[in-house]
Amino acid sequence: MAYDGGVNAADDAGVPTGSFDAFGDGLDAYRVEPSKRKSLRLSDYDPDDTGDFSKNKKGKKKALKQLAKETERMQALQQRLYAEGKRSVLIVFQAPDTGGKDGTIRWVIGPLNPQGVRVSNFKKPSAVEARHHYLWRIKKELPKPGMMRVFNRSHYEDILVPSVLKTEEAAVVEGRYDEINAFERNLAEKGVTVVKFFLHISKDEQKRRLQARLDDPEKTWKFDPNDLKSRALWEQYMRVYEKMLARTSTARAPWYVIPANHKWYRSLVIARILRKTMEAMDPRFPPPPEGLDSIIIPD
Amino acid sequence: MAYDGGVNAADDAGVPTGSFDAFGDGLDAYRVEPSKRKSLRLSDYDPDDTGDFSKNKKGKKKALKQLAKETERMQALQQRLYAEGKRSVLIVFQAPDTGGKDGTIRWVIGPLNPQGVRVSNFKKPSAVEARHHYLWRIKKELPKPGMMRVFNRSHYEDILVPSVLKTEEAAVVEGRYDEINAFERNLAEKGVTVVKFFLHISKDEQKRRLQARLDDPEKTWKFDPNDLKSRALWEQYMRVYEKMLARTSTARAPWYVIPANHKWYRSLVIARILRKTMEAMDPRFPPPPEGLDSIIIPD
Repeated sequence: MAYDGGVNAADDAGVPTGSFDAFGDGLDAYRVEPSKRKSLRLSDYDPDDTGDFSKNKKGKKKALKQLAKETERMQALQQRLYAEGKRSVLIVFQAPDTGGKDGTIRWVIGPLNPQGVRVSNFKKPSAVEARHHYLWRIKKELPKPGMMRVFNRSHYEDILVPSVLKTEEAAVVEGRYDEINAFERNLAEKGVTVVKFFLHISKDEQKRRLQARLDDPEKTWKFDPNDLKSRALWEQYMRVYEKMLARTSTARAPWYVIPANHKWYRSLVIARILRKTMEAMDPRFPPPPEGLDSIIIPD
Repeated sequence: MAYDGGVNAADDAGVPTGSFDAFGDGLDAYRVEPSKRKSLRLSDYDPDDTGDFSKNKKGKKKALKQLAKETERMQALQQRLYAEGKRSVLIVFQAPDTGGKDGTIRWVIGPLNPQGVRVSNFKKPSAVEARHHYLWRIKKELPKPGMMRVFNRSHYEDILVPSVLKTEEAAVVEGRYDEINAFERNLAEKGVTVVKFFLHISKDEQKRRLQARLDDPEKTWKFDPNDLKSRALWEQYMRVYEKMLARTSTARAPWYVIPANHKWYRSLVIARILRKTMEAMDPRFPPPPEGLDSIIIPD
């Protein structure tokens, strides 16, 4: 996959937005429109939102039923994508610690056929990775034709972390916005549909979830004392997320801000968006081999 | 992962077989014992076998219920393996065309957490792959610590195909038996538990399944006219499988011959063997971080 980092692809003028504008079902509200580029505030998005569902057991039960239907439809679309073997889907998850990336992968991606989907985890860059361009390790994990790929964290960490911790020069980090837009535009042109999700939880909800990790002996291994350092920088991270979401949500690689305080609603909204995105791609089974009717299978 | 191809690891004398010998539940019958090395005949294994289950809807229903329980137990073991983050599992599937590799992956591996398992498909080597040693592409797909990896076909194709089609010199292919045993022993020593499954279907069953691909418009894309060429060489392939199973089933990387005419029994037996294999590994959650009790999460 060639990389045209020199092209300024941040300008989406003239790019057809296709069916993304026509999601309906209230899903458009979660999409970051390129027009919001300068004014996005996460405080405008309610992390506690559950749409038309009541915030109780009944609402949850109803949502989980719908989630099962959505993942079933995703399975059928995934099979066609795989059979077609031409295009692919790249799903990016970003979130504060405990935001629910792992759970989303389990509940939304889990029901898919493992033969057609892979998950890539991007943790703190290794010594080798750190010596390369930040997109080096990303490019090694891109989906092959017919496949779905999930990024648990991504190249966006290379904007987030240095912006907050000031570990790199501001101008270097600044250049990455256009560079990433160009990179993702390039992917789109090569048949990779990119969809990006920011899992939006409140600071209170993070506290509850960190406490749950401390309290459950099967979860303590997930507790990383460094998470508390990031928590202390919550506001700084949110400001960078806002800038990042505003400047890198494009018609071809849109960001969705997902209300994620309620895990069941979060999973349902993401499954719906993915299913609609794949429906819009409309993958098709390839035509049968020539002369199929005359084939006789010998004993 | 270093490769010590020069070491003759075919000799398993002195290797403790551990809990593999104590599967019980009739599962040992499916394991190829190193002692069978010279006398293995696939005709001794009934592809229609369904163990204690009746070959009807009632038997199938009962088996699928047990399968659900097995995959649930596998999920819990997978989570521990992932949390432990030290050892890994490599699962190899080999079978004649239509033998059920894809279906097994969907039904047995599908319920696992996609974050902890990846599937690798080894098709006919690409031009680049063909210029390398046959284990080159295999080594790129080995599981990382904490992960499970599934090989849909594998390095065993590099014994099978050239043996039947005579595309390489006999001495070269002959050398691969020891080479593969050494390679897998090396994996075991590095903490990779290797389990290998041969899905055993009858020639009649293959005919039915190929016909089903022709008849179902959603399956025709899977029909490859080349499959008929392989079918014409059925007996030759079976002779090579017998030699391969006999010579490369080791205490550290055993082969299982799975009766695969009945998909539900095939899946159940494989799930049971995998669950027992992982139980024998006994992966553990890492200890909680130091001073966990004194941690207070700030607002």
